Amino acid sequence: MPLGCYLPYTRTLVGVKLSSFTLHSLPFNTFTSHLVPAMSTNQPGNGDSETPLRQPLLSSQRSIVNSTSQVAIVGVNVCPIESLDYEIFENEFFKQDWRSRGTAQIFQYLLTKWLLCFVVGMIVSIIGFCNNLAVENLAGIKFVITSNMMLEKRFQLAFFIFFVFNLGLTLFASLITALIAPTATGSGIPEVKAYLNGVDAPGIFTVPTLFVKIIGSITAVSSSLLIGKAGPMVHTGACVAALVGQGGSKRYGLTWKWLQFFKNDRDRRDLITCGSAAGMAAAFRAPVGGVLFALEEMASWWRSALLWRAFFTAAIVAILLRAFIDLCLSGKCGLFGKGGLIMFDAYSASIPYHFVDLPPVFILGVIGGILGSLFNLLLTKVLRIYSFINEKGTVFKVLLACVISIFTSCLLFGLPWLTSCRPCPPNPTEPCPTIGRSGIYKKFQCAPNQYNDLASLIFNTNDDAIRNLFSKNTDDEFEFTSMLIFFLSCFFLSIFSYGVVAPAGLFVPVIVTGASYGRVVGMLLGKNSSLNHGLFAVLGAASFLGGSMRTTVSLCVIILELTNNLLLLPVIMMVLFISKTVADAFNANIYDIIMKAKGLPYLETHAEPYMRQLTVGDVVTGPLLTFNGIEKVRNIVFILKTTGHNGFPVIDEPPISEAPVLFGIILRDHLLTLLKKKAFMSSPLAASFDVFNKFSSDDFAKKGGSSKVRLKIEDIQLSEEEMNMFIDLHPFTNASPYTVVETMSLGKALTLFRELGLRHLLVIPKISSRSPVVGILTRHDFMPEHILGLHPFLVRNTGKRSRFMGGCPKNLKLMEFDHSIMLEKKKDDDVAVEPTYPYL
Amino acid sequence: MPLGCYLPYTRTLVGVKLSSFTLHSLPFNTFTSHLVPAMSTNQPGNGDSETPLRQPLLSSQRSIVNSTSQVAIVGVNVCPIESLDYEIFENEFFKQDWRSRGTAQIFQYLLTKWLLCFVVGMIVSIIGFCNNLAVENLAGIKFVITSNMMLEKRFQLAFFIFFVFNLGLTLFASLITALIAPTATGSGIPEVKAYLNGVDAPGIFTVPTLFVKIIGSITAVSSSLLIGKAGPMVHTGACVAALVGQGGSKRYGLTWKWLQFFKNDRDRRDLITCGSAAGMAAAFRAPVGGVLFALEEMASWWRSALLWRAFFTAAIVAILLRAFIDLCLSGKCGLFGKGGLIMFDAYSASIPYHFVDLPPVFILGVIGGILGSLFNLLLTKVLRIYSFINEKGTVFKVLLACVISIFTSCLLFGLPWLTSCRPCPPNPTEPCPTIGRSGIYKKFQCAPNQYNDLASLIFNTNDDAIRNLFSKNTDDEFEFTSMLIFFLSCFFLSIFSYGVVAPAGLFVPVIVTGASYGRVVGMLLGKNSSLNHGLFAVLGAASFLGGSMRTTVSLCVIILELTNNLLLLPVIMMVLFISKTVADAFNANIYDIIMKAKGLPYLETHAEPYMRQLTVGDVVTGPLLTFNGIEKVRNIVFILKTTGHNGFPVIDEPPISEAPVLFGIILRDHLLTLLKKKAFMSSPLAASFDVFNKFSSDDFAKKGGSSKVRLKIEDIQLSEEEMNMFIDLHPFTNASPYTVVETMSLGKALTLFRELGLRHLLVIPKISSRSPVVGILTRHDFMPEHILGLHPFLVRNTGKRSRFMGGCPKNLKLMEFDHSIMLEKKKDDDVAVEPTYPYL
Repeated sequence: MPLGCYLPYTRTLVGVKLSSFTLHSLPFNTFTSHLVPAMSTNQPGNGDSETPLRQPLLSSQRSIVNSTSQVAIVGVNVCPIESLDYEIFENEFFKQDWRSRGTAQIFQYLLTKWLLCFVVGMIVSIIGFCNNLAVENLAGIKFVITSNMMLEKRFQLAFFIFFVFNLGLTLFASLITALIAPTATGSGIPEVKAYLNGVDAPGIFTVPTLFVKIIGSITAVSSSLLIGKAGPMVHTGACVAALVGQGGSKRYGLTWKWLQFFKNDRDRRDLITCGSAAGMAAAFRAPVGGVLFALEEMASWWRSALLWRAFFTAAIVAILLRAFIDLCLSGKCGLFGKGGLIMFDAYSASIPYHFVDLPPVFILGVIGGILGSLFNLLLTKVLRIYSFINEKGTVFKVLLACVISIFTSCLLFGLPWLTSCRPCPPNPTEPCPTIGRSGIYKKFQCAPNQYNDLASLIFNTNDDAIRNLFSKNTDDEFEFTSMLIFFLSCFFLSIFSYGVVAPAGLFVPVIVTGASYGRVVGMLLGKNSSLNHGLFAVLGAASFLGGSMRTTVSLCVIILELTNNLLLLPVIMMVLFISKTVADAFNANIYDIIMKAKGLPYLETHAEPYMRQLTVGDVVTGPLLTFNGIEKVRNIVFILKTTGHNGFPVIDEPPISEAPVLFGIILRDHLLTLLKKKAFMSSPLAASFDVFNKFSSDDFAKKGGSSKVRLKIEDIQLSEEEMNMFIDLHPFTNASPYTVVETMSLGKALTLFRELGLRHLLVIPKISSRSPVVGILTRHDFMPEHILGLHPFLVRNTGKRSRFMGGCPKNLKLMEFDHSIMLEKKKDDDVAVEPTYPYL
Repeated sequence: MPLGCYLPYTRTLVGVKLSSFTLHSLPFNTFTSHLVPAMSTNQPGNGDSETPLRQPLLSSQRSIVNSTSQVAIVGVNVCPIESLDYEIFENEFFKQDWRSRGTAQIFQYLLTKWLLCFVVGMIVSIIGFCNNLAVENLAGIKFVITSNMMLEKRFQLAFFIFFVFNLGLTLFASLITALIAPTATGSGIPEVKAYLNGVDAPGIFTVPTLFVKIIGSITAVSSSLLIGKAGPMVHTGACVAALVGQGGSKRYGLTWKWLQFFKNDRDRRDLITCGSAAGMAAAFRAPVGGVLFALEEMASWWRSALLWRAFFTAAIVAILLRAFIDLCLSGKCGLFGKGGLIMFDAYSASIPYHFVDLPPVFILGVIGGILGSLFNLLLTKVLRIYSFINEKGTVFKVLLACVISIFTSCLLFGLPWLTSCRPCPPNPTEPCPTIGRSGIYKKFQCAPNQYNDLASLIFNTNDDAIRNLFSKNTDDEFEFTSMLIFFLSCFFLSIFSYGVVAPAGLFVPVIVTGASYGRVVGMLLGKNSSLNHGLFAVLGAASFLGGSMRTTVSLCVIILELTNNLLLLPVIMMVLFISKTVADAFNANIYDIIMKAKGLPYLETHAEPYMRQLTVGDVVTGPLLTFNGIEKVRNIVFILKTTGHNGFPVIDEPPISEAPVLFGIILRDHLLTLLKKKAFMSSPLAASFDVFNKFSSDDFAKKGGSSKVRLKIEDIQLSEEEMNMFIDLHPFTNASPYTVVETMSLGKALTLFRELGLRHLLVIPKISSRSPVVGILTRHDFMPEHILGLHPFLVRNTGKRSRFMGGCPKNLKLMEFDHSIMLEKKKDDDVAVEPTYPYL
């Protein structure tokens, strides 16, 4: 009785515990003693309902080769993905190495850190500047030629040139993206965000991706597609950081010895965070906003030190961009002029607004929030449809892009004809009509001294359109119908354009749409509000951004930096807050939705309520593959060949210790290095310290870059004699792995796993008499889909997000709907999955 | 041989392991079985060199009563402090409670969170506004009266009035601070920062502290002492948040049922972070800067969700402040005028600066960094001297404040006489001389049509002085000698004024000093730089702030928000970066220095290098007090009475389990609640679920506020019969405590402890045959001083901060110097410390 009576406290909540467990089909005679048949506590009894592989929602591809990794859509292709490891790996070899480092090395490491940030900032600012220069000139030439044709009344030729120019650029962008680097598709923010959370998607930070991202973004934006350059710039910045931190490309034989201390996931993560901050800073010339965006939206782990480094990188970008623009003031930059780089300075005068203006602002925020969440919803639907098309092959991808380009060209050229011409104002602030690239009074088809207000917005680059919309004292220059048409066309064009196979951002389309929405509201209110329509445009952009992106602080700062008016701060804060709150009632932030749809296993900070009801033992699966402290080479080779696991517990067994004791955990990469360097012994004895001399710390450093350069077990050739030798794993085993007891609640284990950025979390038994390790938890084991797949009754019992909803049945339904899709899909999946679980 | 040969890998690094351990003098016969005599691995053998209690550097007081807590200087008094606990306590009772919560409760919790932020924002903005209003009017009246006397050439009377006014205000401020709430002394930022790191100093968030902080700050600032109001505003904001989150004061019988879910350290911490953001936002009318300051400087744990909530609070402050100023525009606010609230808008025009201007800016940054670190150094020295004076009693504290006030009055009134009068410019932008409170042309003793430039700076409120310094196109209005005198007097006055017993901030003095330093440099450069002196003042303020405070992003945003000119961004970023880098080579940020000197045990994120060389077993101490799963009431009462420990491991022993098994950890507060509610059983059997009905979740909620309202063991009266009964601790024990294996490296354990915000970390044995728990690690065990005290050879072997220094021998020396003080001091400390370690 005394023993049994406490079980309710520990195991009440998970009723079903099946005792049967699936046995692995490994040859037991080879290394029986190392295959600890730990209770596979929760494996469902019947073999055909294996715990499912996590799959992207968007895809329905079935030809998955790598059975030990998860898969996700990266860019447009389905790829296997791995986890990153932010734990400091403390084995005897590394400790020896750290101790041997002098002040010079530490100084070198510190200097490298800052130098890399400087280099990243420099490269990103150059790219950002060139990007703007190229877009302004490419799109500028196009508009100048077309306008000249229009002046000569040769409208059909104008349309043809416009059409061919756009189609050509889009075709080029989509071709290089689809053929050279499909990972460069889209904004890249979801992929980078997932990377910073610890998900390593292959190919997102390679040289081809970087080039395609830059060139593709320039051509795609110049082709008048309604897509932005901010997202691609963030990806570009991250990519530059990853490549610079890697010290060149090993594939191309370019490596740099100075960066040897930098080859680990932690430092790479920090540098990539700085890189994405620099990217955002360069895109909008908003350094503080860029830093905040990187920290608020991108990074999963923050530190004050990182904030400072990101700030430094962004400052370099800001200073260099200013210097470049100084150079351009002399007029050497072609059509770049002195504007360029978005509409910084557009709104520098002081605007009066008072307490009475708050109700319209409130309404603006509410509707903006609803529109933003609607935008997210529609965009997801469209992406799902596009995914079916993209899946059919490269030709279809490119065709889709071309169709969107043709459609956009027709719309942009056609719509201005719908509105009537307006006479120029008596005392225009700039020449009317403007026959150049920028300006508020586009002539289009109109007679002299008249202008087409819709063409001023639509037949322009996005940056110029935003500048026109944000301008004050232009309340009478646009007609309501024009603005409404512009708003609607932007709204739908941006939804349809994002999914094309080309680098494409969402920021600028959302700002354009939001600004036009704001003007529409301003016009509807008319004389009921004393605010001018330019301010309405700014607030509309803020509300739509808040409704779609949901970052608040960074958006606020970015908008302030764009408009250069700090007096707008309180009111922009209010709009953002309202629209985010409203939109959060409907769905998640657009990047999170896309990331989820792509199947990237993003780990949230908070534990779902049902995770508190489960223990670690309820999700950990077996059987577990472990190594002995001194292991036979043959066994190591066999396990590495037959599994894709990445971490293996090392256990000391009698006679090495009195009872089986967990010594630590060893990584696949390190085992491969040991095998490659052939640090073998003929008898199972402890290695002497001489073994350290065989290795340099660089041998064990985690290489960045593509998986192609990484060591593989297949590359290692061993003789029969070597196969019968032994390796002492102790000096290379992380002797301080983080552990949890199997009765630990899953929620608390998740907190530990997430906060410390782990890849493997060892589960040790509660009762000491059993084997020293029960299993390993990986990122996968904390995914809600995985847990709910193991414990289906939780799906019904707990409204997954009830913690956040607070009585919003609509949201609950949506979540349940999503889950049912996922669970059903997995049931009829005929993918052959190995019964053991990948340690990612 | 096979057994022994692995020891080098696990225990190589700490050579000395003493086997003797100090035994506790507890009556063993009472509960021998629960006193697990775990190996006190590293207790030095001789009893008189007990591991020392951490003590504040500033104090030399020896009358410490509470021997189970650490002590620190809070405000000006030495107080015992405790740790906070951010772990989610998962016992069966709480789980039951969570499960029983419906949507309504969750909604209530969410709504409360936001509502509290709203209320905090509202109250803080009202306080901030009233504070400004009061200061402007109090100081304004003083200056108006004095100026009128001066106009009548009655200089002695003018001085007398000025002198008496200042002395009276200072006396009042220091008296209420010293007598009512000594915790309100100083800026309060170090205390709040320590609180947010998990250090609970008593009395920092009480109603008297709040009132003294507000009133004291107003009077002290009005008394012309060179102290700021930003620091006190941050403390005020935090205090408001703490009091609001507490749901009124239990002491005064004001509690609010709605806040029941809010009574835990986590939610309180988040709200206080928001409160300090609001405080900073209100002080400078810089909402984004306030949020960033709270996150960069104050908070130890960040989340995106918290960022958003802090932003909301700051937005409320910004909006309401704007509304209040709208009200004041009609002129009802006396001398408040339309300026008030610091110099927002002072610098709104566009300033040209180019690449060639960078060298002077670079020099400015370097010297600013050196000056800033010198400021920190001198301030620390002065504070140490003041601490000796303050220690002598209230009279001395108040006297010190009066002396400083007299000295300041004499200086402020005397210095302007040193400079000669200057003729008014031919076409002044404002009346010259200005005979009111603000304005750039103070008449002082001068003839009509002349003004005294030094008086314009010195004989003014600090806000006005900053406004004058920041103004552009005033290059010719100040003389070099005046500016130099002003700079020097500000530099030393701010050092001598901060330590007085009154609420005093550092931000404003540092800005004033930095701005005058910037102007001095600008004047020295003369025609060699095209930048105007107002810009030099802004940059000088930035460099001095960067050199002293060392926060970068938030300072940058605050300065931008103060000057309302985003175009300054790149150059301010550069200055801040340079000055911070330079200053970091010399010493730490001023708040950290003060916090360290006060003895607040702040836990850093990073592990010191030597921590990687130690294992957890090397610092954990015993013997350990544990409870049985079903424990006799008498034993519980005895242990609670004889120790001050806060967490006790609960161990199931035979016959309840086969072998001793760690069940979890139980808190002192929860034990007290169990004793108070008398949930006893007559026989040692498991409790039924009925026991839950005796309690509500509120009984176990952690109360905020002063320790006076907390339950104490002395308050609980039990009969002899009750003493012999039993309690089943299982349902109330946290069954998911975080654990580390004793061979875990100390550095990694620190990471775990710090990232998860723990108060207790259980250490479990490596070899399963021993007792199930080796010891408990608390905040104290991770303090460098404690570890270095246990392992003195580390002090010599490892330059403590070598990781950060990169070959800066000066820093190393400084650190060693500091340590030697600390260690020596402890050696001759005759404080009676209990041999067991407090679980804080």
